[in-house]
Amino acid sequence: MSDLAGEAAGRDAADELAPLRAAFDLDDGAAYLDGNSLGALPRAVAPRLAEVVRHEWGRLRIRSWGESGWWTAPERVGDRIGRLVGAAPGQVVVGDSTSVNLFKALVAAVRLGGPERDEILVDAATFPTDGYIAASAARLTGRRVRAVEPGAVAREAGPRTAAVLVNHVDYRTGRLHDLPGITAAAHAAGARVVWDLCHSAGALPVGLDEHGVDLAAGCTYKYLNGGPGSPAFLYVRQELQHRFDSPLPGWNSHADPFGMESGYRPAEGATRGRVGTPDILSLLALDAALGVWDGVDLAALRAKSLALTDFFLRCVAAYVPGDRVTSVTPAAHAERGSQVSLRCPGAGEVMAELVRRDVVGDVRPPDVLRFGFAPLYCRFADAERAARELGEVVRSSRA
Amino acid sequence: MSDLAGEAAGRDAADELAPLRAAFDLDDGAAYLDGNSLGALPRAVAPRLAEVVRHEWGRLRIRSWGESGWWTAPERVGDRIGRLVGAAPGQVVVGDSTSVNLFKALVAAVRLGGPERDEILVDAATFPTDGYIAASAARLTGRRVRAVEPGAVAREAGPRTAAVLVNHVDYRTGRLHDLPGITAAAHAAGARVVWDLCHSAGALPVGLDEHGVDLAAGCTYKYLNGGPGSPAFLYVRQELQHRFDSPLPGWNSHADPFGMESGYRPAEGATRGRVGTPDILSLLALDAALGVWDGVDLAALRAKSLALTDFFLRCVAAYVPGDRVTSVTPAAHAERGSQVSLRCPGAGEVMAELVRRDVVGDVRPPDVLRFGFAPLYCRFADAERAARELGEVVRSSRA
Repeated sequence: MSDLAGEAAGRDAADELAPLRAAFDLDDGAAYLDGNSLGALPRAVAPRLAEVVRHEWGRLRIRSWGESGWWTAPERVGDRIGRLVGAAPGQVVVGDSTSVNLFKALVAAVRLGGPERDEILVDAATFPTDGYIAASAARLTGRRVRAVEPGAVAREAGPRTAAVLVNHVDYRTGRLHDLPGITAAAHAAGARVVWDLCHSAGALPVGLDEHGVDLAAGCTYKYLNGGPGSPAFLYVRQELQHRFDSPLPGWNSHADPFGMESGYRPAEGATRGRVGTPDILSLLALDAALGVWDGVDLAALRAKSLALTDFFLRCVAAYVPGDRVTSVTPAAHAERGSQVSLRCPGAGEVMAELVRRDVVGDVRPPDVLRFGFAPLYCRFADAERAARELGEVVRSSRA
Repeated sequence: MSDLAGEAAGRDAADELAPLRAAFDLDDGAAYLDGNSLGALPRAVAPRLAEVVRHEWGRLRIRSWGESGWWTAPERVGDRIGRLVGAAPGQVVVGDSTSVNLFKALVAAVRLGGPERDEILVDAATFPTDGYIAASAARLTGRRVRAVEPGAVAREAGPRTAAVLVNHVDYRTGRLHDLPGITAAAHAAGARVVWDLCHSAGALPVGLDEHGVDLAAGCTYKYLNGGPGSPAFLYVRQELQHRFDSPLPGWNSHADPFGMESGYRPAEGATRGRVGTPDILSLLALDAALGVWDGVDLAALRAKSLALTDFFLRCVAAYVPGDRVTSVTPAAHAERGSQVSLRCPGAGEVMAELVRRDVVGDVRPPDVLRFGFAPLYCRFADAERAARELGEVVRSSRA
């Protein structure tokens, strides 16, 4: 066993979060480092979903909207996510996709400002859908979109800025943006800020309430392990909820949804962010998946995440010829999420070979290998193995 | 056995669709007449969903987006629904809620017209969410909403009408609106028409292609039995797809979604109606549920539906004192969906007692009892029993 493999074994043995891996359906033979794209399956999901289908839907049928708590699940599951992103209860609601929630948040943010605020600033390296949705929100509200580097928000935001949309962690590079600083800078300019938490929720502490974030959205199928395409979440800061003016005022967000009133009267609280009938099977699968978080300390989670990515970078330096890969993930802890991205010529073929060897990451254009480290179930041994196999693959592809 | 009970037994024995009931998890002891709110559980769902969770998500994980066909499921399942609403393949996509799809359809419909078309006509008795969403679409596109009776569209639609939104079947009364006639009237005025098919998809033939409908949306958890809150569908007529300009241009609707381009280029075809990552668990539960439709002839379905509601109305006339309930569902077949709605004083208490007797319908304000007849699994015996128990309940509540 190499020194690094030995070190990995020792660190896994000492890892206080290591027992959580048993809550997931993972075999020891694979190094699954794609939890930043699709989280692994928590073991609690399948039996709970079977119960929901067979008993709640199959036996109780329509009565389950009340008796099984289906109707209030979006807020109840929202509160569970709230704890993981630093939001007190009553501010997070689950439903729809991330894109749809970003649309609600951006239009609502624009409506919180005056007509003189005619621009939306968007993270220049943003995940594409954020930019597309921001452009649509701008078009529909008579604003324009301007792309800026997140670090430049303090300089770029001004009296014409209605809203600022930033990804907390960049999907491609894994760079963690300065949420407290950018939020404060947006507020100093009188603008609202919308955070996309897809790559940070469940990966590190977010602190929405603490840092005064206005609005946020994120997916639940990455580090929150809710399942493929599981419903997203929307955070609306409590003080703003009574002014949250949704562009998607579906009947589920009405103050009296079963009153079937012809006029719209929005509900109070997080419920105002709902739209149509909640997707119960996926929502309750997510609910079951969130059980693995009970009692997890987010500071310990973050410490393990950084230890894993630090260790992986050390292993890459030791095993992979230095001229073949370059990390595009910041070395500074304050600027790093829970993934490591390596530029690598022929990234697509390299990753395909790694997957054949049961080391599963993914690729983003043009030539970035992504390795995600979900701290609830990734092991130091996975990091060591992934780097070692990567070294073998790039060496053999050069041969 | 009463004459009507005997007749019911005979008709059930002769019903060519009766064997389909065995495909559902229904016990003989209940008369489930709320499939117009939540369809019963098809037996194929639980084992398929278990396989999706345990094998596709749990074992294959991220590979399932390709290997298990997850990525293309919205269009594939859309085509299955297409057959049931009279749409040739390539025009229906599944995802999001009905409300969100109505929003896409209405904004897109408005954008197909010129700026002089400044109004959206909405069915005056519409399901509330349709009206709320239409108002939002109008506000965001600088139009106004005007409520009209569906029968008055020919008179009311004119050169200022951008779009007409009508419910195919009214959720409260069960009235079936004239889809061919209203569509033709809207077109004669140069307007686009958007049909809400929530209460007709899976209940009767719709004929979207045949009648030249522009856009349509509907839910899948009523007569299509997709499960609570299962994803909705969107139909965009093939000739309009290249001009379909979505207000929710998420990355799933991009021509090259994994190219991660900063600029939006819409996909061709039904895919253009997608937004974010599809909700796979619910989508594949729906896919499994749709298997019960294989080989079902929609003309036979409609014939059974009308026979059931005719028979129920006869039983009500025989069993229920005439001064206690009044049908608000049209007697004419051409104007009837697949439910019967009865005005009844104290409707809430009456239905609660019926539910205690395992006759399950529901109530809509102010005093309407709804009995839905899903032709795939409802029996003539259910109709007879429901009317008989209703007679007993209203008699005893008067005593």
